[in-house]
Amino acid sequence: MKTRAAVAFEAKKPLEIVELDLEGPKAGEVLVEIMATGICHTDAYTLDGFDSEGIFPSVLGHEGCGIVREVGAGVTSVVPGDHVIPLYTPECRQCKSCLSGKTNLCTAIRATQGKGLMPDGTTRFSYKGQPIFHYMGCSTFSNFTVLPEIAVAKIRQDAPFDTSCYIGCGVTTGVGAVVNTAKVQPGENIVVFGLGGIGLNVIQGAKLAGAGRIIGVDINPDREEWGRRFGMTHFLNSKGLSREETIAKVLELTDGGADYSFDATGNTEVMRTALESCHRGWGTSIIIGVAEAGKEISTRPFQLVTGRNWRGTAFGGARGRTDTPKIVDWYMNGMIEIDPMITHRLTLEEINKGFDLMHAGESIRSVVIF
Amino acid sequence: MKTRAAVAFEAKKPLEIVELDLEGPKAGEVLVEIMATGICHTDAYTLDGFDSEGIFPSVLGHEGCGIVREVGAGVTSVVPGDHVIPLYTPECRQCKSCLSGKTNLCTAIRATQGKGLMPDGTTRFSYKGQPIFHYMGCSTFSNFTVLPEIAVAKIRQDAPFDTSCYIGCGVTTGVGAVVNTAKVQPGENIVVFGLGGIGLNVIQGAKLAGAGRIIGVDINPDREEWGRRFGMTHFLNSKGLSREETIAKVLELTDGGADYSFDATGNTEVMRTALESCHRGWGTSIIIGVAEAGKEISTRPFQLVTGRNWRGTAFGGARGRTDTPKIVDWYMNGMIEIDPMITHRLTLEEINKGFDLMHAGESIRSVVIF
Repeated sequence: MKTRAAVAFEAKKPLEIVELDLEGPKAGEVLVEIMATGICHTDAYTLDGFDSEGIFPSVLGHEGCGIVREVGAGVTSVVPGDHVIPLYTPECRQCKSCLSGKTNLCTAIRATQGKGLMPDGTTRFSYKGQPIFHYMGCSTFSNFTVLPEIAVAKIRQDAPFDTSCYIGCGVTTGVGAVVNTAKVQPGENIVVFGLGGIGLNVIQGAKLAGAGRIIGVDINPDREEWGRRFGMTHFLNSKGLSREETIAKVLELTDGGADYSFDATGNTEVMRTALESCHRGWGTSIIIGVAEAGKEISTRPFQLVTGRNWRGTAFGGARGRTDTPKIVDWYMNGMIEIDPMITHRLTLEEINKGFDLMHAGESIRSVVIF
Repeated sequence: MKTRAAVAFEAKKPLEIVELDLEGPKAGEVLVEIMATGICHTDAYTLDGFDSEGIFPSVLGHEGCGIVREVGAGVTSVVPGDHVIPLYTPECRQCKSCLSGKTNLCTAIRATQGKGLMPDGTTRFSYKGQPIFHYMGCSTFSNFTVLPEIAVAKIRQDAPFDTSCYIGCGVTTGVGAVVNTAKVQPGENIVVFGLGGIGLNVIQGAKLAGAGRIIGVDINPDREEWGRRFGMTHFLNSKGLSREETIAKVLELTDGGADYSFDATGNTEVMRTALESCHRGWGTSIIIGVAEAGKEISTRPFQLVTGRNWRGTAFGGARGRTDTPKIVDWYMNGMIEIDPMITHRLTLEEINKGFDLMHAGESIRSVVIF
């Protein structure tokens, strides 16, 4: 079949809207009509050439929502007509990681996914006879895409596509970091560095969990209003502050340090500040942001020996098929908000504008609607 | 009163055995006759001038065992004749840290202890009219010492002094790192880097907790026999191996990585190896060793984002007055061993020989008996 898609033919070039050939689903695969997709910093990170393992030509996009249109042999968990969110972190429920109950990082199809291929080692996309690679196992910048069955989360049918797609990455990553990874308890103090989309979702996750003080740190004062909109109780403009000064302010606001800190910037210097803003004895810092290739985090070991914990999270610690539908329920029940975060709605033809808005810091989330 | 003591008059010089003046206990303090004291790497670290906050002249030593001989006004938890272990990590049971239930790092007397002073801001030791500073709140290299009431753990009277003293630091640090900090569960795989006294105690803690594979890593092949003596199941001689090679060997032995790794070397490069030897998704690395001043740990944030946790422990996460007596019970019940680890028994006059043996790697633990 044919599908309209935005293709990244090479790094550092705008996406091109073309018509691709798409093979139907093989055994264990499903064909999904993507109805809406968000544009995430990780797409830009790859497109801008920062990801040393980025593969081109490929169909980017990993934050989508759509409808199953066809299923391959042996598929049992979804049927045509089901609404689904594609999962870049699948959930096979059979590998050592899934069965451990201690991580959401399913390893069933990791090797092929990292190479831009389906689990059988081939691609479904092609353009003029040349293969086009998949991206993060999703490729949601295409009107139709093929996904492994274990990489789709079935969700309720009354959830709107143009907001639910954000649950495919940003919402779950931020809210889940608080709820699944940190497991913040009522009254605990948290601080989040970076008030972009992820940071705002950390804030609303913390509010949902009943956190005490919810401190947002950013160098852009315009983000204060955004933060307060979702439950932030204190704002710290860290522009021009040294690491020590920023930490001192957080310690002052939290009676000695945050119970949990979150880095939502991807900046390794900020990750250190986040760790050292934690309370001695038990404070835990959670890295959410993706750092530039080759960058390292560092601190004095004394920070850990005196009781701080350094952790990370991917897809908010959410098990793809089990937890993603719950986040959709939370949204539909009004426990979390998404609508005000969708600042721009674009057509596929306007997708490069979405990247421009993000780079300029003018969007929280731009969504492409097919 | 007078007391015989080994005094560190300045860094990088041998200790001098002299007779000091010792003031009796003030309110909330106790006078303890030290019966035996271990010589720990941390004493050497300070004596050798590596601790930028080391204070001289002082009475070093923090791993002792003795008998309460006199109590100051208001002391209610111990009486003369009680056997006690001095605590460099006190337990006031009233500060925010103690009450949190989440850390053993009591802060009640931290400020003065760090300055080599008793909680009232003065010293009890003097020599020819000049004040001699306390060390880690303990100063066990003195036949008599004065301690805050909250800094002594009352233990059973049938425990021998010359082995129980080791519980004042090394045993509790190693065993506690496994039992209190990591909370290792039966069948979990652990790896410990550095098979000195701490490493051996990690091993016996892991054995006690029912760990599956217990892997010891050291560059000294003579330590293999020591490790196996206490429950190590696999030995890895890492001499000449690159970080990547060492990690690959651990991953091979543990089906993908250790559930818990422990650094018992104090070397920041080894701390990184320990972290990266952990299993993706959940592996936790615990720093026990004290690093040289100014040294930093580093890694790629990807290590944490993919589910590894970086933590530390001090005094094995043990609450001084609550947990130390339990470790003594475990020793007396035969759940852990100490006797074979006490490789040398010395008089106070021979204390510098104990430091020499440690530096030469010829002792597991030297104990001074008064």
